[in-house]
Amino acid sequence: MNGLTIEKIQHAATVLKDVSRKTDLIKASKLKCQSVVYLKTENLQETGSFKVRGSAYKISQLSEAQKQAGIIACSAGNHAQGVALAASKAGLKCVICMPDGAPLSKVEATKALGAQVILVKGAYDDAHAYAIKLQQENNMTFVHPFDDLDVMAGQGTIALEILEQLEWIDAVIVPIGGGGLIGGVSYAIKQLNPAIKVYGVQAENAASMVGSVASGRPITVKSVATFADGIAVKTPGASTLPLVREYVDEIVTVTEDEIATAILTLMEKQKLVAEGAGATAVAALLFNKLPLKGKTAVAIVSGGNIDVNILSRVITRGLITSGRQHTLEIALEDKPGQLVGVSSAIEKCGANVVRVDYTDSDPNTSVTSCVLKIGIETRGFDQIVAVKAALESEGFNILSA
Amino acid sequence: MNGLTIEKIQHAATVLKDVSRKTDLIKASKLKCQSVVYLKTENLQETGSFKVRGSAYKISQLSEAQKQAGIIACSAGNHAQGVALAASKAGLKCVICMPDGAPLSKVEATKALGAQVILVKGAYDDAHAYAIKLQQENNMTFVHPFDDLDVMAGQGTIALEILEQLEWIDAVIVPIGGGGLIGGVSYAIKQLNPAIKVYGVQAENAASMVGSVASGRPITVKSVATFADGIAVKTPGASTLPLVREYVDEIVTVTEDEIATAILTLMEKQKLVAEGAGATAVAALLFNKLPLKGKTAVAIVSGGNIDVNILSRVITRGLITSGRQHTLEIALEDKPGQLVGVSSAIEKCGANVVRVDYTDSDPNTSVTSCVLKIGIETRGFDQIVAVKAALESEGFNILSA
Repeated sequence: MNGLTIEKIQHAATVLKDVSRKTDLIKASKLKCQSVVYLKTENLQETGSFKVRGSAYKISQLSEAQKQAGIIACSAGNHAQGVALAASKAGLKCVICMPDGAPLSKVEATKALGAQVILVKGAYDDAHAYAIKLQQENNMTFVHPFDDLDVMAGQGTIALEILEQLEWIDAVIVPIGGGGLIGGVSYAIKQLNPAIKVYGVQAENAASMVGSVASGRPITVKSVATFADGIAVKTPGASTLPLVREYVDEIVTVTEDEIATAILTLMEKQKLVAEGAGATAVAALLFNKLPLKGKTAVAIVSGGNIDVNILSRVITRGLITSGRQHTLEIALEDKPGQLVGVSSAIEKCGANVVRVDYTDSDPNTSVTSCVLKIGIETRGFDQIVAVKAALESEGFNILSA
Repeated sequence: MNGLTIEKIQHAATVLKDVSRKTDLIKASKLKCQSVVYLKTENLQETGSFKVRGSAYKISQLSEAQKQAGIIACSAGNHAQGVALAASKAGLKCVICMPDGAPLSKVEATKALGAQVILVKGAYDDAHAYAIKLQQENNMTFVHPFDDLDVMAGQGTIALEILEQLEWIDAVIVPIGGGGLIGGVSYAIKQLNPAIKVYGVQAENAASMVGSVASGRPITVKSVATFADGIAVKTPGASTLPLVREYVDEIVTVTEDEIATAILTLMEKQKLVAEGAGATAVAALLFNKLPLKGKTAVAIVSGGNIDVNILSRVITRGLITSGRQHTLEIALEDKPGQLVGVSSAIEKCGANVVRVDYTDSDPNTSVTSCVLKIGIETRGFDQIVAVKAALESEGFNILSA
């Protein structure tokens, strides 16, 4: 903790005025949970995540010689854009190494912010090794995504803004990957008001901080198979861990399905696009993982950079689990007029047919019958029940549950 | 215009302090267009749209006797929730008539805000007729969604906030349905700074204001077949029209595809969920419908209440038109190993297979061959070209363009 002081974080806040936005704190009146929830909308931050704060403060603290030599970083995600914008605002040369499988949209976005992008063959570790090599050869400054006190000081400015934006809160809930965000935020909160609880949230499938806190040293988890890629960190930071151990009250985990539900809920109820990592704090609230009944809590929505293909799947899955899309399997006799009967029954219930698949070679049915799979859009489970009842009253044999 | 004054709008702003949010004005750095764009995020307003402003001010201006008799409105959309919240904050009885086909989510959301919802058999007009009947029987006050000077004064508070939030702007761009939002906003802007342009945007398929402005009286269009349901208004207001004619510099229209692109762009680049109506101003900017090259423009994102099923389709359509989803049709010889060959070629290009449909009875192919339809997720058009080239170099016959 040498070096992290509340004065440093306050200083970061003044430095960041020209780089990052003071994001809005929005009361989430439509989230159904046991607490009064406010959202700190870092998904609406420049570059779509909080990362620009830490990078910009880190860069501001370099010597003139360091600034002249330029900045290097390695990231396939939010950190890349954060560093690129921070360097560009400071007028410095910036190189970002990315694994060559990085989504084109992220490569383009990073280039658009003025950085030179080097695509390195292989995975994240290969890109990282190459970045370190370049850094050493060229004397550039490597900006770490989390394990750095200046970076943490930058992220801690979020806490100052929250305390300024809302008079009274009981708790702040923070996503955890490497610990940079929660390191800075928890330190600042506890210095200014130790009565406020700080809770951390990890993806169950990437809970490296949970084990590290328990064992007292950074442990490495083998797999981080979560779609919350922003917090898929195998080994937390050596300098973030002591802060997390000292200032964070509790860390909980959330499942992939809970994260997906939180993403859909944020879109539908609060009109905000969050990425997996960015939705974890809200997931912890929606699924009552924390002792916050009746309390006022701020959830940090840390970022919104989610691939649209993934977002599309999250929505589809959410529609199915909430009864707004459903696929019926119906055994039909092999005679004319059957499809008319099925579609009329569905139409009478006000549901909307969106997909039809008809096959005559399903081994589960008799040779004289066929299987119709029909996808419908519905208003909820009640309407699905009504559609099934209507079909059965017309004599159709529904195979699906 | 009798009655609408800048003092009234300023008064509305003080009345609204306890009801509506001062929504953030966000610089949209990632929109690719010819202007510097700021978004007035009324999609992040309470109830997900600006409508609460007008209703709340209207209600605040009623006499005690009127307040005691209660409020009635008719809406299948944003106005319902706006009136319900405004009435609930004022502690007044509130009845909302909705057509019985209204989405369950909107019915539930309106009830959750404390209103009594009456589902009326039929379409909007039937619900409206029933609301007027109830209003007359019970002496309640009917809150019109747009054709009312107090409602317009409430909506005009958006203009005051914009001028306070940003020192210098060249133009404000406003979605138009009945004209309540642009009536209040254009009046306020031109009173305070006549140099600022005010542009209106309508859906091409529901351009009733365009014709009305031209003919000088409210005309009725037969059909309003747009998925921007928030501005699907057949007849603009008698009291909004004169304001629009006097204070709006130009009205342009956008197509359904342009609106869909704007929705996807707002989600992907700005992390905001907008409904069709809410995305029209951004659509006008993205497709260069306005003379704003190099200018600074504020687009009002008027609401975010879009059905998730529709949102899901908008995303899918956007993914296809931007080359990130593609369906290949390949004629396969009817012999073993063909599917392995196809899937290996796709995998080598780094694309992801998400759907497979295989049929042996396509009349367009010879009897010894089958047709494979294979859906892939790609990074863009370049990758689609690469996949096709890889398949062709393996000797596969691609049928689709």
